[in-house]
Amino acid sequence: MIGTPVHALKKGSNVSIVVQKYGGTSVADIHRIRSVASRVLKSQKAGHNVVVVVSAMAGETNRLVELAREINLSPPERELDVLVSTGEQVSAALLTLAIRDKGGKAESLMGHQVRIITDSTYAKARIKGIEKDRLLKSLEVGHIAVVAGFQGIDEEGNITTLGRGGSDTTAVALAAVLEAFRCEIYTDVEGVYTADPNIVPEARKLKHISFDEMMEMAGQGAKVMQVRSVEIAKKFNVPFVVRSSFSNEPGTLVDKEGLRMEGAVVSAVTCDANQARIAIYHVQDRPGVAARIFGPLAQANIVVDMIIQNVSAEGLADITFTVPRNDLEAAFGIVEKVSHECGATKVEKSDNIAKVSIIGVGMQYSPGIAAKMFEALSKSGINISMISTSEIKISCAVERKFAELAVRVLHERFGLEKEETG
Amino acid sequence: MIGTPVHALKKGSNVSIVVQKYGGTSVADIHRIRSVASRVLKSQKAGHNVVVVVSAMAGETNRLVELAREINLSPPERELDVLVSTGEQVSAALLTLAIRDKGGKAESLMGHQVRIITDSTYAKARIKGIEKDRLLKSLEVGHIAVVAGFQGIDEEGNITTLGRGGSDTTAVALAAVLEAFRCEIYTDVEGVYTADPNIVPEARKLKHISFDEMMEMAGQGAKVMQVRSVEIAKKFNVPFVVRSSFSNEPGTLVDKEGLRMEGAVVSAVTCDANQARIAIYHVQDRPGVAARIFGPLAQANIVVDMIIQNVSAEGLADITFTVPRNDLEAAFGIVEKVSHECGATKVEKSDNIAKVSIIGVGMQYSPGIAAKMFEALSKSGINISMISTSEIKISCAVERKFAELAVRVLHERFGLEKEETG
Repeated sequence: MIGTPVHALKKGSNVSIVVQKYGGTSVADIHRIRSVASRVLKSQKAGHNVVVVVSAMAGETNRLVELAREINLSPPERELDVLVSTGEQVSAALLTLAIRDKGGKAESLMGHQVRIITDSTYAKARIKGIEKDRLLKSLEVGHIAVVAGFQGIDEEGNITTLGRGGSDTTAVALAAVLEAFRCEIYTDVEGVYTADPNIVPEARKLKHISFDEMMEMAGQGAKVMQVRSVEIAKKFNVPFVVRSSFSNEPGTLVDKEGLRMEGAVVSAVTCDANQARIAIYHVQDRPGVAARIFGPLAQANIVVDMIIQNVSAEGLADITFTVPRNDLEAAFGIVEKVSHECGATKVEKSDNIAKVSIIGVGMQYSPGIAAKMFEALSKSGINISMISTSEIKISCAVERKFAELAVRVLHERFGLEKEETG
Repeated sequence: MIGTPVHALKKGSNVSIVVQKYGGTSVADIHRIRSVASRVLKSQKAGHNVVVVVSAMAGETNRLVELAREINLSPPERELDVLVSTGEQVSAALLTLAIRDKGGKAESLMGHQVRIITDSTYAKARIKGIEKDRLLKSLEVGHIAVVAGFQGIDEEGNITTLGRGGSDTTAVALAAVLEAFRCEIYTDVEGVYTADPNIVPEARKLKHISFDEMMEMAGQGAKVMQVRSVEIAKKFNVPFVVRSSFSNEPGTLVDKEGLRMEGAVVSAVTCDANQARIAIYHVQDRPGVAARIFGPLAQANIVVDMIIQNVSAEGLADITFTVPRNDLEAAFGIVEKVSHECGATKVEKSDNIAKVSIIGVGMQYSPGIAAKMFEALSKSGINISMISTSEIKISCAVERKFAELAVRVLHERFGLEKEETG
């Protein structure tokens, strides 16, 4: 996916490159842009070659999308990408101006200038390759390279965007290509927490977790980062730090290993209230039935998460699964039609659920974690309607009104408020 | 400057390309963008291949420049170009969305996609060449090509902008390269007038004027277009029409010939209140003195307009000249220093002047026009402090408070309110 990494800027030199990514809230106004400029310059003065990736100013992407929707209710994605990518272009130029105002050397670079080459899937393009020459040229003359995040170009030169969390993806991919010494994701929270502090006041910032845990957390509704950028970090083994641009706290280090602790098998509890459930009753249990149901959903780009199938003695199956809440109506329309053809007697939908998960690399070596989870929920009178598991995660669907209670109960049950000892 | 023009889209085909440029007020809001979309589609339905060039939405460029200035009082021009060029990118995407919403086929193209190659003079780059393949590819599949005006890239891929009136320049240059059948400059006025209608209520819209007259008018303060785009139109013989996007009036045709009329020697009266005057007294009249004074001004990028030099019997010269009002302080600083070295006894400045001009291709064949002008001004008690002439223009500097009166007096004296007979 990404070209061969460079080992040093010039033959014989041994320069350490740092990639820093600043999110929309970190560049939300002029005051904050100035403070990011200071932070970036401090890193340069500490002896690093700094590549900065910026998001659009908070609110700007939404403003542009709204403008597009006012003109065209289903705006074609090529043009939407042209439109929204201006948000990052503005941020990159403004941050460069702020750095230069403080006497620093800097230049902004857009996706078409760095040459961040993607496929042509507008609105959620995947990076195919990044040329590093232009970036290195910038660093060589002592510039801070300020790269517009989220954007790229396809092989025909069309402007593309990388989808939600795209600027994180840009940062991690640049760090991979440049073999950066460090990748720092600056955001408006202090790091990754054992649970959402708004739900669990005792939630504790994690010092160190693994790529796999971070990916599960992203997938299970922790809003710090999108799964995709963590996937890339894992694939190219780019350790990164999630930290706040509003403080000097060290943040959370995410890498291959995470922190192995005696006894600590669960690292975090997450909650995803953005799920809805569809149930199909009494489908004939024949080969190909699942494909006939889930095929059209995939074609409609609807992501199916938890799937449960029970087969009765009569050879009839009940199939239950979850989809993102926003896709519920579309998914239900598709499923109703197909289920009919499969002989289903009833199709039901409910957007009254939430998915609560516990995550931890230690889990795979510790039997009995699932039982402990179910027991804790049950003791608090919380009914579990669906269960799904991976090696390092157990998720339960519960009634939405119990979601926060479930998170608090599990956080306490697994002792997550206690300080790490690693 | 511009590559060889194309004669037809495909071998054997004979397709007429129309280039239409819409200014900032024509795309100022969603309502207006929709109406531009309708107009563009109408042209396509009439059988044309349409290339549209758009400016930033009215006010947007100023908003972005303000933002930059809040961060950096003297923002480096490379970054300012990155910033302000987003304005045209947004307009191009929104107009494309509007055309597609109405069922049309369209795609937006940025400077780096068309490949509008410029030199590297940020903020006022000059076009070196335009590749036409990408545009033709778009037209070939039936698209309306919506090009972001004002912007280009240099040979290293840096984003540049073409300076004030840059979108007109883009339109005229595209029309030249594509050998367009027609170039239409849509703006918020009905065309080119014999004088500013705000000053002279009797002012009349001209049906037809020459490139040379249009250039003089632009140079003398008529705000319809910048000199540079007219220069390019003349150089590549691209006739264009200036018309309103808010009406269906035919506008003013600007071409090589203009309209030759019996008796009509003056086409228009213009007024430029944006001038200031510097006078240097008693300089020694030696070779090289003018160069010593005007050299440093040119180096500081200050455009000197009218220049008058009187030499006294004692061999001492008084030099008077005008500069744009915004440059007065800078120019005065430079001139004070140099004048001292040339032995001048006094240097004065005044920003209390305006330049009033009469323009007309007929003038060069009609003696006595200047005398008629001076007489008319004198009769109204307006004192002339400086005079400069070209083949098709006579300009007088007058006290600013008399500027509007002078325009009205001259408009009447030369009978410009009368209908053209050509």
